[in-house]
Amino acid sequence: MTKDIFESLRKEIKNEPYANHMGIRLRDIGPGYAVMETRYSEKMTNFVGLVHGGAIFSLIDEAFSAASNSHGTVAVALNLNVTFLASPAINSLLVVEAKEESRSKRIATYSIEVMQKDENGDRKIAACQAVVYRKDQRLAFLEEEAT
Amino acid sequence: MTKDIFESLRKEIKNEPYANHMGIRLRDIGPGYAVMETRYSEKMTNFVGLVHGGAIFSLIDEAFSAASNSHGTVAVALNLNVTFLASPAINSLLVVEAKEESRSKRIATYSIEVMQKDENGDRKIAACQAVVYRKDQRLAFLEEEAT
Amino acid sequence: MTKDIFESLRKEIKNEPYANHMGIRLRDIGPGYAVMETRYSEKMTNFVGLVHGGAIFSLIDEAFSAASNSHGTVAVALNLNVTFLASPAINSLLVVEAKEESRSKRIATYSIEVMQKDENGDRKIAACQAVVYRKDQRLAFLEEEAT
Amino acid sequence: MTKDIFESLRKEIKNEPYANHMGIRLRDIGPGYAVMETRYSEKMTNFVGLVHGGAIFSLIDEAFSAASNSHGTVAVALNLNVTFLASPAINSLLVVEAKEESRSKRIATYSIEVMQKDENGDRKIAACQAVVYRKDQRLAFLEEEAT
Repeated sequence: MTKDIFESLRKEIKNEPYANHMGIRLRDIGPGYAVMETRYSEKMTNFVGLVHGGAIFSLIDEAFSAASNSHGTVAVALNLNVTFLASPAINSLLVVEAKEESRSKRIATYSIEVMQKDENGDRKIAACQAVVYRKDQRLAFLEEEAT
Repeated sequence: MTKDIFESLRKEIKNEPYANHMGIRLRDIGPGYAVMETRYSEKMTNFVGLVHGGAIFSLIDEAFSAASNSHGTVAVALNLNVTFLASPAINSLLVVEAKEESRSKRIATYSIEVMQKDENGDRKIAACQAVVYRKDQRLAFLEEEAT
Repeated sequence: MTKDIFESLRKEIKNEPYANHMGIRLRDIGPGYAVMETRYSEKMTNFVGLVHGGAIFSLIDEAFSAASNSHGTVAVALNLNVTFLASPAINSLLVVEAKEESRSKRIATYSIEVMQKDENGDRKIAACQAVVYRKDQRLAFLEEEAT
Repeated sequence: MTKDIFESLRKEIKNEPYANHMGIRLRDIGPGYAVMETRYSEKMTNFVGLVHGGAIFSLIDEAFSAASNSHGTVAVALNLNVTFLASPAINSLLVVEAKEESRSKRIATYSIEVMQKDENGDRKIAACQAVVYRKDQRLAFLEEEAT
């Protein structure tokens, strides 16, 4: 059954309109855990020529969403606190990892990091602390599949 | 001279790759102040069918960036804290307003709000508190124009 | 009935161990709203001789707690994001105001500000954005009084 | 020379008015790193009888301050984002650990955690992400000692 959740999430994220609009791909998913990656080209830059903060946050939010919904019930994002540490090189490989730090019936918290990975070593781009509110309601696409 | 900064920012934001990728338009800009708007269609939705948090954050970050760079020198985003209050209707008019709350030589802080506007009244979608580090360096596109 | 909540909260805060330990007094309370004040002496300073960040945060949290519990049911603090803007003068009058920004069945958010007030004008010391989780459970001291 | 910084900080924190007011003791300090501990009695409780959020934040801020000033130059707290995960038992041993996550010339970021420690195992009480602005100015008490 647990396997079904992850398979369904993989499929849903692969077909997600926003993930496709941003070029974000899922690399790994588990209970309370997700890893995503992307490379941002010039079309993701801001008016000073750097990768836009919104593009980096989108990567964070995508991993946060996958990790927090990985228990099969709906998790609603309440609060994200993002600290930007460095600006990534254009077209560099960016990897985001979201890890569950705590989970109660209604609330769960996550620690999320974006790293630039290349042959010269890793570089931390952004760090985030995030909170969801957890509903009882099962994810709709899991229900549909069960039928 | 101040007028030139705002005119330049209007032009730069109009041509910004990311703002165009996201369909965000500048509506108003002043010293430490910016208003932007957008409408997000189905292609901006996440895997549960709602407008993606990354798309809402992108709108926030765009206004934050315009407001914090409106003094003519480079402002680097350090930290954003976003609280999501409601999910906007698809294709609804979203308006973001960024206001400077404080500014010293090196640090400035902003309060940013996203509202859904329609005939039935306004609805608050997200609230953000954000901090920049201010460099001495003038915005490159202002230098180029001065020549 | 509503009047009873505010009278009870006034009494509870007046007798609160921590508020007394910190010298914090309630000035005003209403639905989703609270104002507190204090003056911090040398005994509240840190090792560089300034009023300690913990003392300023305590003032914020006290107002946040009163405002978020003002509806009569238990509100649990989930997340506070504090930006420090200036260091207050020792023994100056510090006033904190907490305002409810949004409230749903389970979640409510607050905007909180600390000002230094004196004859030369006001000075903003800190700004905070905060989130509570709201339980169904009534505040215990309201139940006791009802008996 | 580095040894002198840590010895001085140990002495300054031992004599700090606020740390004494709150009963917080330094346990360990290193470059960008600090561990503190305390036990909060009934006099640190709020009007619902739990340890006050301000008391927990004070512990966080104390460790943050020691860790961020451990390089010998003045670090000014800009922003702290705290998520409260559980309420500690009264008089339980609370241990806070602050770790530097990144440091550039002007900005450094820290991850800070409060744990309740007892024979039945550890329990995470709060998690914090925090940012300082770094000045060139040396800590005054280091200068005085050099004379």
